[in-house]
Amino acid sequence: MRAVVYDGKLKFHREWPEPAVPKGEILIQVRLAGICQTDLEILKGYSQFQGVLGHEFVGVVVNGPKNLRGKRVVAEINCVCGQCDMCLKGLSNHCRRRTVLGILGRNGAFADYVVVPERNCHALPDNVTNEEAVFVEPLAAAFQVLRQVPIERHMRCTVVGTGRIGLLVAQVLAQTGCRLQVIGRNPLTLEYCEKKGIQAFHVDNVVPKADQDMVVECSGDENGLAISLQLVRPRGMILLKSTSAKPWTIDLSPAVVNEVTILGSRCGPYAEAINALARKQIDVLSMVSRIFPLHKAVEAIEVAETPGTIKVLLEVSKA
Amino acid sequence: MRAVVYDGKLKFHREWPEPAVPKGEILIQVRLAGICQTDLEILKGYSQFQGVLGHEFVGVVVNGPKNLRGKRVVAEINCVCGQCDMCLKGLSNHCRRRTVLGILGRNGAFADYVVVPERNCHALPDNVTNEEAVFVEPLAAAFQVLRQVPIERHMRCTVVGTGRIGLLVAQVLAQTGCRLQVIGRNPLTLEYCEKKGIQAFHVDNVVPKADQDMVVECSGDENGLAISLQLVRPRGMILLKSTSAKPWTIDLSPAVVNEVTILGSRCGPYAEAINALARKQIDVLSMVSRIFPLHKAVEAIEVAETPGTIKVLLEVSKA
Repeated sequence: MRAVVYDGKLKFHREWPEPAVPKGEILIQVRLAGICQTDLEILKGYSQFQGVLGHEFVGVVVNGPKNLRGKRVVAEINCVCGQCDMCLKGLSNHCRRRTVLGILGRNGAFADYVVVPERNCHALPDNVTNEEAVFVEPLAAAFQVLRQVPIERHMRCTVVGTGRIGLLVAQVLAQTGCRLQVIGRNPLTLEYCEKKGIQAFHVDNVVPKADQDMVVECSGDENGLAISLQLVRPRGMILLKSTSAKPWTIDLSPAVVNEVTILGSRCGPYAEAINALARKQIDVLSMVSRIFPLHKAVEAIEVAETPGTIKVLLEVSKA
Repeated sequence: MRAVVYDGKLKFHREWPEPAVPKGEILIQVRLAGICQTDLEILKGYSQFQGVLGHEFVGVVVNGPKNLRGKRVVAEINCVCGQCDMCLKGLSNHCRRRTVLGILGRNGAFADYVVVPERNCHALPDNVTNEEAVFVEPLAAAFQVLRQVPIERHMRCTVVGTGRIGLLVAQVLAQTGCRLQVIGRNPLTLEYCEKKGIQAFHVDNVVPKADQDMVVECSGDENGLAISLQLVRPRGMILLKSTSAKPWTIDLSPAVVNEVTILGSRCGPYAEAINALARKQIDVLSMVSRIFPLHKAVEAIEVAETPGTIKVLLEVSKA
């Protein structure tokens, strides 16, 4: 099969071995896959991953139990043991022995076929298109914010960073009716927010007043955390949504002095993301900047790094 | 009066103007003062403070309302407006217009006399000695941990750093009956913990297992936070107790991936600290390494930086 592989170098392979299907797992023919910031960080050394890249995808089950065969599915990316202390506590996303699709010890979805545990699959309703479904994974990560912080309408919330995850978090927060603003550097994505009725400011025009109840740091940059620490009120919260290949240099004293809570935030609830897409509550289609065929993945990943694009997708196969 | 002043340089002054006493404030003759890590950080540029140093002290009220005059007191260090949004929310330690004794916009207690708002004072019971009372401020900061995290006996807790605040936090946590260990570098303070029945390990002998429910970072060092991130379990908590003059270089990705909560922690409840001292629940006297007379403060501060000492006190006046 065809596959996009990172082994210290990024390369498109025309002849890559088709994956075996262990017991309890299923084979999915990938339709569409999304390029995520985490993929770009992996190319800079994050997670020391080597193998087939890609964890955002939608596909069709070609080998699996009868009830799933032929179904369009998305899949949770954490493949877990079910037996460790974390799994037994109901925190299986934090499984001690987990592999993570295209990120940690398991091949990903930038390929004709991908194998995932059956229990990781979510069948899609007909009214969620492939172009929407490919956003389920990052949108679920955005919904995770609502799982971690009970947002109320009176709360002042800021999203720092208007990249792919920032725009999704902003849309999710906009639905809560809280007092929302986003702060970024990219005129394209700031304008995108304004068009959706979300207040958006260029970072150079912001005078932080330490009055935000919650700040969601989505820039993946040390400057983003520094301004988050200036924006958040004493005893407020900062959520960190981005992993980064390189360490940050940061003064955390303001977090101590202002007794700020900094919360790491990762994967989220797929069912909520699918529901939101099915009910057309979140617009992801307008985030798609370009769609490349799989064999142009290397070029697509370069384009995904440029500020002129929001989301870049890979078309792997057609129905 | 005599005073220890930092204005870019640290100097002992024999002739420093006695402070005026504004309405609502009282004049205290200082008996004993403590040297804190924050004082040392100020000398490295933290908080850009200039003025009389010192915020840990015990003294006797010489000018104030009748009910306080002649009384031995300690004083809260945050001097607040009572009118800003934080004060009105009951978060007056985070007052927007606060000054902080010897740290922010207000002269401190390394002097014959110090002026503080009357409402900041706590009269001391007779069975708390001056040598104990001078620990009320940092001990209250240690008790703040219990205000922020409900500790239960089954919880695994680690204190990273066995400096002054680390030893106080360790003693406070030991009282909860939780499964406690401390990790440090200094054989002197590690042994101090062991003598108190608290498990203590040299950092080089620790293999982090990501199994601690809570880690209290008291080292004030980026390496301390890095090992805290390896010690804490997924979804666990790290409390940051130390401010630092210099920024840290740190990889926060583990906090994101493991959805760790990092909580800044500063000043705490004086009443609880005074009660614990009155009931002899916390032993602070054994932490006192040296007592210098006020006029030797510059030397005392140098000694406080050396690993051979725990707490260094300044004797300002005698009864």
